[in-house]
Amino acid sequence: MSKLTWAMIGGGKGSQIGPTHRISAGLDGHFHLVASALDADPERGKAFAIDLGIAPERAYGSWQEMLEEERDRSDRPDLVTVATPNATHYEITSAFLTAGFDVLCEKPLTMTTQEAERIVAITRETGRVCAVNYGYSGYPLVRQMRAMVAAGDLGRIRLIKAEFAHGFHADAEEADNPRVRWRYDPAQAGVSAVFADAGIHAFHMACFVSGQAPREVSADFASLVGDRQLEDDAMLNIRLDGGALCRLWTSAVAIGRMHGLTLQVFGEKGGLSWQQQHPEQLLFTPLGGRTQILERGDAGLSAEAVRASRIPIGHAEGMPVAFANIYHDLADVLRAKKAGRAPDPLALHYPTAEDGLLSMRAIAAAANSAGSGGRWTDI
Amino acid sequence: MSKLTWAMIGGGKGSQIGPTHRISAGLDGHFHLVASALDADPERGKAFAIDLGIAPERAYGSWQEMLEEERDRSDRPDLVTVATPNATHYEITSAFLTAGFDVLCEKPLTMTTQEAERIVAITRETGRVCAVNYGYSGYPLVRQMRAMVAAGDLGRIRLIKAEFAHGFHADAEEADNPRVRWRYDPAQAGVSAVFADAGIHAFHMACFVSGQAPREVSADFASLVGDRQLEDDAMLNIRLDGGALCRLWTSAVAIGRMHGLTLQVFGEKGGLSWQQQHPEQLLFTPLGGRTQILERGDAGLSAEAVRASRIPIGHAEGMPVAFANIYHDLADVLRAKKAGRAPDPLALHYPTAEDGLLSMRAIAAAANSAGSGGRWTDI
Amino acid sequence: MSKLTWAMIGGGKGSQIGPTHRISAGLDGHFHLVASALDADPERGKAFAIDLGIAPERAYGSWQEMLEEERDRSDRPDLVTVATPNATHYEITSAFLTAGFDVLCEKPLTMTTQEAERIVAITRETGRVCAVNYGYSGYPLVRQMRAMVAAGDLGRIRLIKAEFAHGFHADAEEADNPRVRWRYDPAQAGVSAVFADAGIHAFHMACFVSGQAPREVSADFASLVGDRQLEDDAMLNIRLDGGALCRLWTSAVAIGRMHGLTLQVFGEKGGLSWQQQHPEQLLFTPLGGRTQILERGDAGLSAEAVRASRIPIGHAEGMPVAFANIYHDLADVLRAKKAGRAPDPLALHYPTAEDGLLSMRAIAAAANSAGSGGRWTDI
Amino acid sequence: MSKLTWAMIGGGKGSQIGPTHRISAGLDGHFHLVASALDADPERGKAFAIDLGIAPERAYGSWQEMLEEERDRSDRPDLVTVATPNATHYEITSAFLTAGFDVLCEKPLTMTTQEAERIVAITRETGRVCAVNYGYSGYPLVRQMRAMVAAGDLGRIRLIKAEFAHGFHADAEEADNPRVRWRYDPAQAGVSAVFADAGIHAFHMACFVSGQAPREVSADFASLVGDRQLEDDAMLNIRLDGGALCRLWTSAVAIGRMHGLTLQVFGEKGGLSWQQQHPEQLLFTPLGGRTQILERGDAGLSAEAVRASRIPIGHAEGMPVAFANIYHDLADVLRAKKAGRAPDPLALHYPTAEDGLLSMRAIAAAANSAGSGGRWTDI
Repeated sequence: MSKLTWAMIGGGKGSQIGPTHRISAGLDGHFHLVASALDADPERGKAFAIDLGIAPERAYGSWQEMLEEERDRSDRPDLVTVATPNATHYEITSAFLTAGFDVLCEKPLTMTTQEAERIVAITRETGRVCAVNYGYSGYPLVRQMRAMVAAGDLGRIRLIKAEFAHGFHADAEEADNPRVRWRYDPAQAGVSAVFADAGIHAFHMACFVSGQAPREVSADFASLVGDRQLEDDAMLNIRLDGGALCRLWTSAVAIGRMHGLTLQVFGEKGGLSWQQQHPEQLLFTPLGGRTQILERGDAGLSAEAVRASRIPIGHAEGMPVAFANIYHDLADVLRAKKAGRAPDPLALHYPTAEDGLLSMRAIAAAANSAGSGGRWTDI
Repeated sequence: MSKLTWAMIGGGKGSQIGPTHRISAGLDGHFHLVASALDADPERGKAFAIDLGIAPERAYGSWQEMLEEERDRSDRPDLVTVATPNATHYEITSAFLTAGFDVLCEKPLTMTTQEAERIVAITRETGRVCAVNYGYSGYPLVRQMRAMVAAGDLGRIRLIKAEFAHGFHADAEEADNPRVRWRYDPAQAGVSAVFADAGIHAFHMACFVSGQAPREVSADFASLVGDRQLEDDAMLNIRLDGGALCRLWTSAVAIGRMHGLTLQVFGEKGGLSWQQQHPEQLLFTPLGGRTQILERGDAGLSAEAVRASRIPIGHAEGMPVAFANIYHDLADVLRAKKAGRAPDPLALHYPTAEDGLLSMRAIAAAANSAGSGGRWTDI
Repeated sequence: MSKLTWAMIGGGKGSQIGPTHRISAGLDGHFHLVASALDADPERGKAFAIDLGIAPERAYGSWQEMLEEERDRSDRPDLVTVATPNATHYEITSAFLTAGFDVLCEKPLTMTTQEAERIVAITRETGRVCAVNYGYSGYPLVRQMRAMVAAGDLGRIRLIKAEFAHGFHADAEEADNPRVRWRYDPAQAGVSAVFADAGIHAFHMACFVSGQAPREVSADFASLVGDRQLEDDAMLNIRLDGGALCRLWTSAVAIGRMHGLTLQVFGEKGGLSWQQQHPEQLLFTPLGGRTQILERGDAGLSAEAVRASRIPIGHAEGMPVAFANIYHDLADVLRAKKAGRAPDPLALHYPTAEDGLLSMRAIAAAANSAGSGGRWTDI
Repeated sequence: MSKLTWAMIGGGKGSQIGPTHRISAGLDGHFHLVASALDADPERGKAFAIDLGIAPERAYGSWQEMLEEERDRSDRPDLVTVATPNATHYEITSAFLTAGFDVLCEKPLTMTTQEAERIVAITRETGRVCAVNYGYSGYPLVRQMRAMVAAGDLGRIRLIKAEFAHGFHADAEEADNPRVRWRYDPAQAGVSAVFADAGIHAFHMACFVSGQAPREVSADFASLVGDRQLEDDAMLNIRLDGGALCRLWTSAVAIGRMHGLTLQVFGEKGGLSWQQQHPEQLLFTPLGGRTQILERGDAGLSAEAVRASRIPIGHAEGMPVAFANIYHDLADVLRAKKAGRAPDPLALHYPTAEDGLLSMRAIAAAANSAGSGGRWTDI
């Protein structure tokens, strides 16, 4: 099985998310990094690319240059990852899709709903793959949750309780730090800060696990540090189209909480509870029964969870391995396209441009609702 | 130090809360049970009273009878506990207060705000003690939280995250069980079910710990099982008068959660996290520092926590001991009244009729808000 | 059901264990404290007794005085608790048993095996009840463990892993503190320090839960702080007569561990895990199956656990309630004796003089083994 | 920075450890797999190698063939990983070292002490790198423990409590399964089963973290399932040359425990506690102070921990990333050799042939001790 070729835009030296992408893409040996435009500073980007083993002639100084040169190569990359600043996602992703590349874009897919709609339209017209990196949905036990819900183990879903709360923007004295400040500046961040940045992962997971689409939202946004223009804490109530209610809390001021992504799902016949900080255990309580601890790697898990799992039970696989499942899915889909066969249905769990669009709609609706005293607003 | 005398109304054989009151009141040896009207069935109540060691002539068949006989005794009880069905609290409590007794009433204090206002008025006119059993505020580490907030260890409080979620009313087939059904019947339960029953404890704790009063609420109520008329799941956003925002989730359909009472407090300078299922540990994270585990019984805790603690570190004290702190406070206050001295200021942490009134206001406001799409409503 | 009468020797003002006994004995209303000799200082003891509500004429200055006066009373106490310094247990307990009292003695029952044998002989001759306070065996879920083992849920027991480790004697600078020092002085503490003081509880629980008697031991004792003459850390391997192997670690230098009493039991068909710091949950893993969380108060627990449980699920009952189960057992046994009926078989789980003797044998054997390089030694 | 070249022996299709090596070696992009002899079945091995992207001419059918062909290539692999069955480690590793390759051998390095001594001698003579995969020592917080001990944060180390207990060999009916049986067959497994297989990791970590060498051991081995000839449960007391005592429990019959590797270290000035199932948190309790939770990725960790960490705080890195630190160390050391510079001192934490030898000595000594009733035996 020969490797697929891969290109990266953004994610240069010092980037937080860059190394995670390289670890995740390479982890199963599916992708080989052959081209890049890693940095806004062309020289820095090229030098780092060469460090990473990319041939000098494919170490580009900008994404435009890369697009120009690579579009006509016969060996052009099988997948392009876009990990640049948020405001550039739309332009780059749509350009590469239009030029016939398959793309994995970091979230958010775009800055506005309209842009996301256009990307969805492009993918429909061109048949290109466009994935969005809601990578936490790659955790084996998150996929187990989805499989159990789909199998009816919980009966009809009544309630989803989702959280993504951290405390890394709680320091008023650091509020002016440029790494933090831009997130609360509407000109750079759009209509939402912490929901668009952190809470949106919990939102995606609620939809992913329940298999339901969001219909309307009532949101309360709060700015609790200094005079921030965007929210650093938010509470959302979301009604889904299958009848489930989702309550979602997200915060950047919860001192003492790390990346506190948690998901609880309550149905007619049972409840599930998972937390990202201990991703190897899933609690399942059947109605009237005892809580059971499901361990990743355990016998008796779903095909979805087994496929997403690599190493023996009892050892934490961790987040890079979870993210690798997105690349693993894409590798299968891209190879199937090349081979003219249908992909493994279990590979179709990666988040798509449609998911990216849904997120943009949810952000817009939540901001509208929060701006009008929590009025229920269509998504 | 001679014992105080104590009478009990309700809490008869088979009652859930009765044994907890008897354990808690007796635990420190402050109170001696001398009179009672334990049961709606007079004969059952008398028989059980005699089992409990009450003299036959003070084992009454009804609270009216007890009131009649005890009001003129020179050795009338120092404290009367009211643990009858909710709808009777107002009538009994107000009757005993008016007759000059000091009362500890189970929550809710009344069924309506107006009734609660009248009880507060009575206590102001008569100088009688009227406590309401928000007993979870008796946990030593909950008092530690209050003390740390009051001492400024967290700086200005920005956010309180409170939960009281369980799954004991999740079974649709048991929804008609009379022990469950009445709670969702407006005629018997009033305007709220799970918030009034469970969430209100979390509400009280948020106010208690922050030292702030609630000002307005935006609530979402949901009925997720069958055709219940009252909510079995609720989300509230509450603004407090000191600037804190409280987000409170309460549920009766969260299968797999036991009495899941939790409290997280986030201020400018740190965060606290406590959960009732493991009440002996409190997590404190100073801004920019490492999370510390505070153990009940540890050196260096506040005077409030030390006073509320009895047994050596490393052994769970448990809930009956927490509730005993309410009786411990009352014993001090009642003895001080008798002796004409000021009570220990640390004894003034028990929940009062004013707290009971505040709860009734919050319930009414939350139900109003929920009924109007989550509109912010004054408490 | 009238109360039983109760007397206390030791456990005066400032004692750690005294309040726990009073809370536990009084908690269910079984025992009424009527006589005492609380303190080595007669006047302090009498004054505190009167504070506790004991009639002045039964507030004795010494246990000898109490024995003299109470032995001939027709209303002499139904139960005498001995909570004096360890070295006096034998003399007091044997004197009261011989005089016809029923006794609950704090552990250790005696200082030597020979003394413990004499107490067992006295109880056999006289038919008196002599209990020893291995109170942790009163936890409902510890009794659940015993019931599950007895019911064969785990199959033949292969291995027991027991721990009682704390760090309260780890400070070299406090080693000379008299409250700590006497424990490491052979003249006062006998042949063992931390095993005799802390580990012995874990030893009792291993025997209690497995229903097996210890046969031989190989021990390693270590003195890790200063020049202590007795061990502050010990590891024991114990072979039980039903084929189980017990590995037991106990320590007083484990900084960061509170009273870390834990018990794991592994059989042919499953495993159990319990820890005293979170006593409300028991983990059960059937062979080849998922771990289940058993909650105290849950439906489907054993009769032993149900009988030992008082308050609703989801609320920690705590250690005083666990200890109260020893008093609860004794109350049933004493009432049965008075009534000439057989006691409830479920009440026969309290630790007896035979258990006390077994502990003394185990301490002696472990010290011998440790002194001879870990040689396997009969218990 | 060009990639290093890498070859693999063993770890073919269906192997448990093979994928972990490939993930770990590739994770940081240091190593590029160029040659292999993956399987005892030559055709299977070649086919899988080609699947992995190895050039057909370097996909060998046996390690002998690979040695023959690769030894004279100018581009021979920078590192050879040996992940074959245990009994072949010595022959393969010594052959490759002698031929001038640098080697990472899976544990155990050899089957006997004598063999391990010979390998150490070869490495000394040739200057070749020989690492042994005690990969758990790659966890950032394990390195943090070592750094804190080395920095004196705990004072003199008194006691180490180590465990590696699982329940995967507890099923008597599966004892004849060939995947399990060979481990308990002295002809195939040598003198020890569970200690040599699992406990030895805990042993290595105790030495690694304390920086002390083992001096003597007293061991108890037990065979608790069927008629196994080797131990499936063991308890060891080990005295280290810096004065620390290590108590180590290892088991294969602890139903309900996953790969339960834990390490607690207690010194004069504090205690540390870490468990592999939740590797992202380390508990540190300073003497007389509160327990602190150290999070991987937290500010203020040691240079050792920071170097071993890749992704943001709050996300589990997991075991493959921990193992990758061994490869990361080796990459630095190999590059330094090539460049004729000294390696980063922080890269010298990988386990060496000397560590492998120490393990073999400990296994032999423990088996001897266990065979003579626990006699203290030199390591």
